[in-house]
Amino acid sequence: MLFEEMTTFEVKEKVNETSVAILPIGAIEEHGPHLPLSTDCIQPEHVADEVAERLNAYVLPIIKYGHCSSTKNFPGTITLRFETLTMIVEDIVSELARTGFKNVVILSGHAGRAHMTALKLACARVLEKHDLKLMVLSDYDIAYTMDEIDIPVNDGHAGMIETSRIMASRPDLVKGTAEPHHPNFPEFRVLKHPEKHFPSGVMGEPQLASKEFGEKANRIIAERLTELIKKMVDSEE
Amino acid sequence: MLFEEMTTFEVKEKVNETSVAILPIGAIEEHGPHLPLSTDCIQPEHVADEVAERLNAYVLPIIKYGHCSSTKNFPGTITLRFETLTMIVEDIVSELARTGFKNVVILSGHAGRAHMTALKLACARVLEKHDLKLMVLSDYDIAYTMDEIDIPVNDGHAGMIETSRIMASRPDLVKGTAEPHHPNFPEFRVLKHPEKHFPSGVMGEPQLASKEFGEKANRIIAERLTELIKKMVDSEE
Amino acid sequence: MLFEEMTTFEVKEKVNETSVAILPIGAIEEHGPHLPLSTDCIQPEHVADEVAERLNAYVLPIIKYGHCSSTKNFPGTITLRFETLTMIVEDIVSELARTGFKNVVILSGHAGRAHMTALKLACARVLEKHDLKLMVLSDYDIAYTMDEIDIPVNDGHAGMIETSRIMASRPDLVKGTAEPHHPNFPEFRVLKHPEKHFPSGVMGEPQLASKEFGEKANRIIAERLTELIKKMVDSEE
Amino acid sequence: MLFEEMTTFEVKEKVNETSVAILPIGAIEEHGPHLPLSTDCIQPEHVADEVAERLNAYVLPIIKYGHCSSTKNFPGTITLRFETLTMIVEDIVSELARTGFKNVVILSGHAGRAHMTALKLACARVLEKHDLKLMVLSDYDIAYTMDEIDIPVNDGHAGMIETSRIMASRPDLVKGTAEPHHPNFPEFRVLKHPEKHFPSGVMGEPQLASKEFGEKANRIIAERLTELIKKMVDSEE
Amino acid sequence: MLFEEMTTFEVKEKVNETSVAILPIGAIEEHGPHLPLSTDCIQPEHVADEVAERLNAYVLPIIKYGHCSSTKNFPGTITLRFETLTMIVEDIVSELARTGFKNVVILSGHAGRAHMTALKLACARVLEKHDLKLMVLSDYDIAYTMDEIDIPVNDGHAGMIETSRIMASRPDLVKGTAEPHHPNFPEFRVLKHPEKHFPSGVMGEPQLASKEFGEKANRIIAERLTELIKKMVDSEE
Amino acid sequence: MLFEEMTTFEVKEKVNETSVAILPIGAIEEHGPHLPLSTDCIQPEHVADEVAERLNAYVLPIIKYGHCSSTKNFPGTITLRFETLTMIVEDIVSELARTGFKNVVILSGHAGRAHMTALKLACARVLEKHDLKLMVLSDYDIAYTMDEIDIPVNDGHAGMIETSRIMASRPDLVKGTAEPHHPNFPEFRVLKHPEKHFPSGVMGEPQLASKEFGEKANRIIAERLTELIKKMVDSEE
Repeated sequence: MLFEEMTTFEVKEKVNETSVAILPIGAIEEHGPHLPLSTDCIQPEHVADEVAERLNAYVLPIIKYGHCSSTKNFPGTITLRFETLTMIVEDIVSELARTGFKNVVILSGHAGRAHMTALKLACARVLEKHDLKLMVLSDYDIAYTMDEIDIPVNDGHAGMIETSRIMASRPDLVKGTAEPHHPNFPEFRVLKHPEKHFPSGVMGEPQLASKEFGEKANRIIAERLTELIKKMVDSEE
Repeated sequence: MLFEEMTTFEVKEKVNETSVAILPIGAIEEHGPHLPLSTDCIQPEHVADEVAERLNAYVLPIIKYGHCSSTKNFPGTITLRFETLTMIVEDIVSELARTGFKNVVILSGHAGRAHMTALKLACARVLEKHDLKLMVLSDYDIAYTMDEIDIPVNDGHAGMIETSRIMASRPDLVKGTAEPHHPNFPEFRVLKHPEKHFPSGVMGEPQLASKEFGEKANRIIAERLTELIKKMVDSEE
Repeated sequence: MLFEEMTTFEVKEKVNETSVAILPIGAIEEHGPHLPLSTDCIQPEHVADEVAERLNAYVLPIIKYGHCSSTKNFPGTITLRFETLTMIVEDIVSELARTGFKNVVILSGHAGRAHMTALKLACARVLEKHDLKLMVLSDYDIAYTMDEIDIPVNDGHAGMIETSRIMASRPDLVKGTAEPHHPNFPEFRVLKHPEKHFPSGVMGEPQLASKEFGEKANRIIAERLTELIKKMVDSEE
Repeated sequence: MLFEEMTTFEVKEKVNETSVAILPIGAIEEHGPHLPLSTDCIQPEHVADEVAERLNAYVLPIIKYGHCSSTKNFPGTITLRFETLTMIVEDIVSELARTGFKNVVILSGHAGRAHMTALKLACARVLEKHDLKLMVLSDYDIAYTMDEIDIPVNDGHAGMIETSRIMASRPDLVKGTAEPHHPNFPEFRVLKHPEKHFPSGVMGEPQLASKEFGEKANRIIAERLTELIKKMVDSEE
Repeated sequence: MLFEEMTTFEVKEKVNETSVAILPIGAIEEHGPHLPLSTDCIQPEHVADEVAERLNAYVLPIIKYGHCSSTKNFPGTITLRFETLTMIVEDIVSELARTGFKNVVILSGHAGRAHMTALKLACARVLEKHDLKLMVLSDYDIAYTMDEIDIPVNDGHAGMIETSRIMASRPDLVKGTAEPHHPNFPEFRVLKHPEKHFPSGVMGEPQLASKEFGEKANRIIAERLTELIKKMVDSEE
Repeated sequence: MLFEEMTTFEVKEKVNETSVAILPIGAIEEHGPHLPLSTDCIQPEHVADEVAERLNAYVLPIIKYGHCSSTKNFPGTITLRFETLTMIVEDIVSELARTGFKNVVILSGHAGRAHMTALKLACARVLEKHDLKLMVLSDYDIAYTMDEIDIPVNDGHAGMIETSRIMASRPDLVKGTAEPHHPNFPEFRVLKHPEKHFPSGVMGEPQLASKEFGEKANRIIAERLTELIKKMVDSEE
């Protein structure tokens, strides 16, 4: 159920204490020479749709812009300031609370630490004023813990998993493949030009990607997330 | 050309001084008993695509959330604070400037005064730091000045034009029609509960809508906007 | 009754639920070669005094500084940032609520869109915390709808009406007249240098101005506003 | 010379490196049973006019609202938040710098510590971006150091000097006199209800006031300030 | 009792309505050629410990960074923005209120006007949300009113008292002495380079300092503050 | 070398391009029934001193207050808002840049994700204006990767390592030991009351702690950090 396709009266009638709202959020961010800028949008939208079908949940319109750190200087990355992102999410979740939702899931395709912190900080602010249950995660929080499948060590941004998942969801947007690359960032530094360490925009092993792997990953993530949400709905806290 | 489907290297290669970026922005907002919450998103996305094709322009991912005033208390309206919206637009346009765009058009499906002011204020802030050409308009800024077609007096929110245009772009989302209604707001007041004056969420004459009218309106808006953008690109200021 | 001339004890004794506070606000802004920078202050102060007399209302000290867009680069324009203006008005109206006023009118001599939005936004913020009735308007919201008198098409800033009204209220400050000018702004643009389009600072037909017209306009505006306020006081919302 | 009465072209022509701008600022604040809420506005406006005449300086429109601490809970006090006041002054002084002034004096009738800090903080912010000479003082910074006249110990808010000066400038607004009162605030406390310690709103000896004293004080303040400003104009820093 | 050395369970058990929390705050700021940057930290920590012992009060971890104005351009001064300092103090005092303290004293070693205003402003903000008793002072608010001892006129920053007190508390950190200096600031100016007026960083008579004087001053300040706090605890407001 | 014990002239003379500034930051936060609130302060101060000795670096005064999430509702936790912490660090690091440091290390004893993000965000803001090399880490970023020693799985807050390290640095502040506890947080949730899941305030195995382990951990962390900093100083980025 796409929230945006409903009318106000349908919302009024249908949304109740057990309804679940899923807010996907991505990023417009470089993803190597072979993946589109919207890579981090495609993934959570795909998962959100899958999960919503299983749970009869409401999918909110995706926020396509996120907060990017290491990729911020690449052409095509459109990053929001940390505070901007926090405010957007705070506003939207507050409005979902006003509308009557008691269960809200924020699902991010982008897994940057600052980006994820912004989402959680926004939720903490909402909890000071509203009473509802909130979950915040990246689908990569699940992806990297999948036992069922082998992931190359240090596979990351624009690497094997991401490439595979886009091959599964939007094969038309995958432009060939890319060289594997493992950046060697100086440890614990905050850098003005992190992009120097991965000029191709890749951190991982995109050449190992396959559509089958992507489909499997997508399925597992959707299943796990479905379970996690069910638990939240049943939980008292 | 959808910006989000490009890779970082394509952006680097293709974007130059004559490139045009179109940033559509909508709202998630009640639109009567017959139109979807995303009515204000569907319209500018449609126009942006039409215009981009004519101009070889780049369409940025739409911002689906806007700032709503009179509809803010309806179920399903998801409004951002004024400052939040201003910051989003400031961030995105700044990043477009960094990426090399010299011509940016912000096209809003929502035409609320405060909402439009936020967009312009954001642009004014960007101009203090970057050198580029900026246009901000609602497609309703054009729609209400079309001589070619008759629009009922005081037709507005969820009325004849909006209904017609959704009938043209997304007929599957139009759920019947609605009663005409002309709210009688007390003049110049800032109200806590403006929704009392239009409980159906309609301001206008939706029952007069037709797909043909919507198609004609969409076409005229796209043509006019194309001309306006051409003028901006050719202009020296 | 000038609020600023009262003592705290008089305020305590006299202000009650039916009292009306009028807060005039202007701008310090270029107004052509013939009108003073305070043109937008003189007009609402004049009207506020007239209306206050008719209604036994309280006139608050005027805010002489506003938010200016198109005139911002002229010498002598002293513009506040949008957020500054919003905060001032939010603070003052909140304090009026604390003092016991239930009816507050903000009357602006400057009619710029962003400026007016700031005033309304401030009021919306106050309404989240206080319970009172608020009206926000420019005297030009009334002026441009007067049927009784002929106004040249596109007369505006420093034009026929403004010049006439200053001739009526403060003839000593009118320094001759000015050439008519109709700027040809590129449509829908946010410009870094809007002043290039009206180097004389005039948009309209100042040479058509007359004291008689100004007096008539002032009178009509005061009468209409008096009626509007009476309606608000009697209204339940 | 009142800045607000000038046209933009006069400003352009006349303002140069040696021009002095005086920005008076007051407060709308209780001043006992006998003095008007605008007491702190009347005093600096009077002095500013006197000084401007001696120096051929420009008097800016007064900011009538200030930041009040101890009187904040009285009816009729209209206090701005600290940050609001800081932003107003930052904006206005920045605009004066843009307009070409190199010498700006902020003269406050209200002498509250936080209020004065806001003014200085605003100036410090402006100095980070603009190059000009700034002076910030309350006329009470001068008043309390006059050797020529005897001031009762601990005379302060709404006391002998303030009453005398209003008797000199605006005798029509002085409503009789008031009992002397010396509040006994608990030392160094930040109180929620400071007004409990001076329910009449007086701190000092208003019954000792006289028009003669007020005239003398006004004259001395104007003379001293004139000298101070001359020194600033001649100074290299 | 050092708050930071307690466990959470000790805090829960011991803090009650009569408990007193003392929050020392200093500055990292030049103090002439002979005193350490932490001069303003050493002094309130010393006093806080003395007072806490007498009153069985809790000493909070000191905030070692403050807001500096006149010394801001010296090497080694580390100033916080005004708003930053205000927010820190607001946060800490709010948390003390949450923890159950009803009596909080903020004791600052730095006595700059803007710095002190930030502390008071923070407290005023806390009082809007919490119900507790708050005291804010610099130990110099007491020092300059000691009748028992002779202080040279205009002794100030890095002068006789400060030097003496560091000689008493941390003699190991006093590196010889310094020449007396009385800066001749242009009156009421906000300067970009105030340091030009006291290039040695001294304002006063450090050569008159003695350990004995410092010990006496420390003792008197501690005694007076003890009395002031007792009064606050016993007070109803 | 403690920065705070230096004079301004010593700073001016000694600080140069190869100087290293270490800014320790902790938190005042519950740490079980056996460890003090300042546990996260003691650890980085200890390490900073060790490292500074090896490198001839400057240790800045510690910021003892941090941003706490999961412990925020315990008595004695004094959390700063995220934005407050970001602003403090931004201010201090900017001042270090002004003072001439080109190498700054922020070492945090608290390792909360949001807290660490605030530190990095502050650094990113500084890099927009200043040119210097910045490192941000928690000593736990090193601790959890030590191969030399066995750490129980899921040992964390107030657990074996933290207890051991306080036993090594400040044995006088360790009050016995505590029961092991492994909280079972519902996954990916942002909770209003996280403390319900670890009522003792412990997450880990404090009963396994030993002074020897603590000393070894402290030594390894200091050695590793020393190497990391050397690399930064030698690095070109």
